[in-house]
Amino acid sequence: MENIAQVSYALDTFYFLMSGALVMWMAAGFAMLEAGLVRSKNTVEILTKNIALFAIACTMYLLCGYAIMYPGANEGGILPVLGTLIGAENPVEAVTAGGDDAPYYSLRSDFFFQVVFVATAMSIVSGAVAERMKLWSFLLFAVFMTGFIYPVQGFWKWGGGFLDAAGFQDFAGSGVVHLAGASAALAGVLLLGARKGKYGKGGSINPMPGSNLPLATLGTFILWLGWFGFNGGSQLKISDVENANAVAQIFVNTNAGAAGGVIAALIVARLLFGKADLTMALNGALAGLVAITAEPLTPSAVAATLIGAVGGSVVVFAIVALDKLRLDDPVGAISVHGVVGIWGLLAVPLTNGDATFPAQLLGIASIFAWVFGASLIVWGVVKAVIGLRITEEEEYKGADITECGMEAYPEFTGKQ
Amino acid sequence: MENIAQVSYALDTFYFLMSGALVMWMAAGFAMLEAGLVRSKNTVEILTKNIALFAIACTMYLLCGYAIMYPGANEGGILPVLGTLIGAENPVEAVTAGGDDAPYYSLRSDFFFQVVFVATAMSIVSGAVAERMKLWSFLLFAVFMTGFIYPVQGFWKWGGGFLDAAGFQDFAGSGVVHLAGASAALAGVLLLGARKGKYGKGGSINPMPGSNLPLATLGTFILWLGWFGFNGGSQLKISDVENANAVAQIFVNTNAGAAGGVIAALIVARLLFGKADLTMALNGALAGLVAITAEPLTPSAVAATLIGAVGGSVVVFAIVALDKLRLDDPVGAISVHGVVGIWGLLAVPLTNGDATFPAQLLGIASIFAWVFGASLIVWGVVKAVIGLRITEEEEYKGADITECGMEAYPEFTGKQ
Amino acid sequence: MENIAQVSYALDTFYFLMSGALVMWMAAGFAMLEAGLVRSKNTVEILTKNIALFAIACTMYLLCGYAIMYPGANEGGILPVLGTLIGAENPVEAVTAGGDDAPYYSLRSDFFFQVVFVATAMSIVSGAVAERMKLWSFLLFAVFMTGFIYPVQGFWKWGGGFLDAAGFQDFAGSGVVHLAGASAALAGVLLLGARKGKYGKGGSINPMPGSNLPLATLGTFILWLGWFGFNGGSQLKISDVENANAVAQIFVNTNAGAAGGVIAALIVARLLFGKADLTMALNGALAGLVAITAEPLTPSAVAATLIGAVGGSVVVFAIVALDKLRLDDPVGAISVHGVVGIWGLLAVPLTNGDATFPAQLLGIASIFAWVFGASLIVWGVVKAVIGLRITEEEEYKGADITECGMEAYPEFTGKQ
Repeated sequence: MENIAQVSYALDTFYFLMSGALVMWMAAGFAMLEAGLVRSKNTVEILTKNIALFAIACTMYLLCGYAIMYPGANEGGILPVLGTLIGAENPVEAVTAGGDDAPYYSLRSDFFFQVVFVATAMSIVSGAVAERMKLWSFLLFAVFMTGFIYPVQGFWKWGGGFLDAAGFQDFAGSGVVHLAGASAALAGVLLLGARKGKYGKGGSINPMPGSNLPLATLGTFILWLGWFGFNGGSQLKISDVENANAVAQIFVNTNAGAAGGVIAALIVARLLFGKADLTMALNGALAGLVAITAEPLTPSAVAATLIGAVGGSVVVFAIVALDKLRLDDPVGAISVHGVVGIWGLLAVPLTNGDATFPAQLLGIASIFAWVFGASLIVWGVVKAVIGLRITEEEEYKGADITECGMEAYPEFTGKQ
Repeated sequence: MENIAQVSYALDTFYFLMSGALVMWMAAGFAMLEAGLVRSKNTVEILTKNIALFAIACTMYLLCGYAIMYPGANEGGILPVLGTLIGAENPVEAVTAGGDDAPYYSLRSDFFFQVVFVATAMSIVSGAVAERMKLWSFLLFAVFMTGFIYPVQGFWKWGGGFLDAAGFQDFAGSGVVHLAGASAALAGVLLLGARKGKYGKGGSINPMPGSNLPLATLGTFILWLGWFGFNGGSQLKISDVENANAVAQIFVNTNAGAAGGVIAALIVARLLFGKADLTMALNGALAGLVAITAEPLTPSAVAATLIGAVGGSVVVFAIVALDKLRLDDPVGAISVHGVVGIWGLLAVPLTNGDATFPAQLLGIASIFAWVFGASLIVWGVVKAVIGLRITEEEEYKGADITECGMEAYPEFTGKQ
Repeated sequence: MENIAQVSYALDTFYFLMSGALVMWMAAGFAMLEAGLVRSKNTVEILTKNIALFAIACTMYLLCGYAIMYPGANEGGILPVLGTLIGAENPVEAVTAGGDDAPYYSLRSDFFFQVVFVATAMSIVSGAVAERMKLWSFLLFAVFMTGFIYPVQGFWKWGGGFLDAAGFQDFAGSGVVHLAGASAALAGVLLLGARKGKYGKGGSINPMPGSNLPLATLGTFILWLGWFGFNGGSQLKISDVENANAVAQIFVNTNAGAAGGVIAALIVARLLFGKADLTMALNGALAGLVAITAEPLTPSAVAATLIGAVGGSVVVFAIVALDKLRLDDPVGAISVHGVVGIWGLLAVPLTNGDATFPAQLLGIASIFAWVFGASLIVWGVVKAVIGLRITEEEEYKGADITECGMEAYPEFTGKQ
């Protein structure tokens, strides 16, 4: 029996590590998606933000975020306390001793899986504030978001805090990751304002088309692939029949949700705009994924397709609505991750008997209030101290030259 | 022993899911390959087709394709019958009871692995009919191909139908997936005709170079990576020594086949054209992969290299020949997946004693006849009802603007 | 117990295969990184080199490289002897018999993991000699490098040769792979000379900006992901608690090293150049990864971040220094893999008690002397027989047209 426990431990650890690697890969997905959807003069800058925020997220979560989110105490609490960084790894004896409390996977593999989630939340923000926010101001915000704001609400649900005690259900993070990221993004967009020229007089909206749609499509496919780790790994165990079946169901449903999102978004956009709109199809895929993330286990595959399809429809209307509200979000991040994240959380009680609408609403309200409020304060302080926005002239020239000193495509855009 | 059966079940399930995730990733590979090989004015449209066909394939296969392909009855049959969608998941007791009939992996993980294969077959079609087929006509065809045409011949071999009974050997789908996709593509190309200006008077052929070769190269590398899941997962079990050794051999041979294909295609193209032709090297890699897919287990690694090398040589001649026949296939899909798929199937008896040439020829003829014939009918009906081809003016302007209302690279191509 | 041994064997085999697939994926990373950092007129050629060198590396290592590197004899030796190609696969009985000598993973999976490492070493070379070396000369060198030069020094450490006996520590190949690749590259650069126009009179340095920075960023993210296989797989076993914990620590540290490298490189470049330099951030990530590769297990995650950060700082200065020395390395490969590889090897004794500085210095000196010397001879012979460098006119026109007969982006660069 001793050996079985060890092989089982190794399998669960390997499953965590592969899942975490897939989630890490989502960082590349966000980078490509955002780089494809901005104009070429702001491409280097968004790439720099994306790789830098990933590095900052990993480092801040190591230094304090993980300890805040998983204090190993403070059950049902609201205020965070600080646990001990990663903590000591499981000794062999504890595993082979067996029993219900025996650890069944490496603590380091859990940390790895968690650390890449924080980066995902932060990646959502970068797209919404693209093409006008100062690079270093953004990175300064990332320090606080990944080291403190995200971990606190993560603790509320996944660390055993008050939202978990209240019965709030969020399997893989439609709320804790996606809504949280979108809430921080919304606060930033409000303080930052729209890109120059985006909204004209009399309610006119000027399209600013993305400069590289194959890149945006690649980013979407990367995110789709990475999401199998994001949702699949959130089962937290695979080494017995019940859990293996669950992980398989989650893979099927995650894929079905994305497929439903694509089809619905394509059709809705066709009806609204008369064309097969690729950017809406991409946002539909992501919306389907966000929608199924709150509960990828209990729906049937057909139900998952429908949950994704609703997400894919909602996101088209949300993007149109935000533009009418003059909330300028170049990549649609607030619609995809925020609006559809809420839909996903509200859909949980439809298939999961343990979930209730009041608990889901409490979760939505708590996460939004905390992340939006705390972000507003941090963005506000950053704005007061070093400023949030590049100058009008810098925006005209493009952030690539002014912030990074180089062009993304020096030979293609006819500038040299 | 109970626990061992569970861990073993979990490992095989995890192996299926990781393999399926790699095959899903091939969808990104086809999208990038095709987007890189078409002209920039048709790039958004091919991207839209690729993500939409993947979503349609997943949904149609869920709704009826899987039930047709794996009816769980009808052994040795030709006409399809309908099974029960995904069916009920395996209960714990069935696994731990042991015995030869005990299930050893999650049914959902099998569905996930199968569903991504259908999408692969359909992705092959999109490239061949690129730059001139109407988007919605293509998607309508995808509904029938993934929901019915593909599953019927899939049943013939993998679902236990008459080709399986006849001894036809096709390990991972050189026939069932690749030749099937190419047959549907050929039917489409015949009804569609060549791109305007491709073939001039007196037999002249106008090259229409791909607009983004790094993208095409990326797509090839993605497909190469995904193929480890495609072939490696088709062993269907990894949890004992014999199967683990087999999967490892398959990984080695899959890689060797691709490597042989690259080297041969580079050399043959050098001899024919005098240059190191990148697009032929890419097609050589894919040809090597297609060639080894019919039997990636029994050859030695050196033999696999040679089988791939023959595939990489054949594909160069096939591409040249199809152009001479004025069959316009912008990405070479019919040559890579069809012609080389046949080579792969014919090579099986060289290393696998269970295979015979007559059985292989029966399989090739049956798959081609069914898929080509059924596709011709579906394409024909679609043509009669809504038309297959965009207008000459639309083709001149590019499908991106006319079908999708946006450009892939608005700042690079000097149109605005 | 028989079954446990089999499941454990299957798990370790699967872990090897997944790790190898991730390392294979690094080939795509190098291709994208290098294609993004060269000018558009040399892009097709660098892509062709990358896919061809991968194919050559896999084939040469199969034909002789593996047999030289792992002769299964000659312990502590310097001169190579030839083993038997891949050898026979493990029989079931040998595994289930148990005992300390029982094989615990498929020999084919080990071969697969090793073969993709060779390709990595060779990929390092292609970037450094980009934009001016003849394609076929480069591929001829690849034959010797991957079939002989690399395997000999690989034997010295990993095959049980004299460096292993001397206590030289190199966990996953900061020396055996990265320094080796950089040493071969340096020899090539010295014989080849700088690109025309790179270095002007009076010490002036003309920047030749990369043509596609999103591609270079994608390449870096691909390499980051692949490195989890590179380092994680080098533990060589995962199926018990101790090894599973070790692999998890390696994943955490690999990620932390890369994150530290990005942050340090960004800050150092900001201080030196006044801008947020994306290319330095990318090189910082890679430098962090190279630095932690020599010992990704014994440091804590915080220590790994610091080791990576030193690597990320060093690489900025190294790139500047090489340019001052007029050693033209278009992608910074010698700095990233050579200079930082040495740093990684020297950092091992800081956290690993089994390592000593003298042994590390012996390893560095031996690897550099052998690979640099042997490469110089091979490059020299190639130069004398068929030449190394394209003509001045070819260089002006670009290697794409002259070597490959096609353009990477025919519609973007305004040439047609």
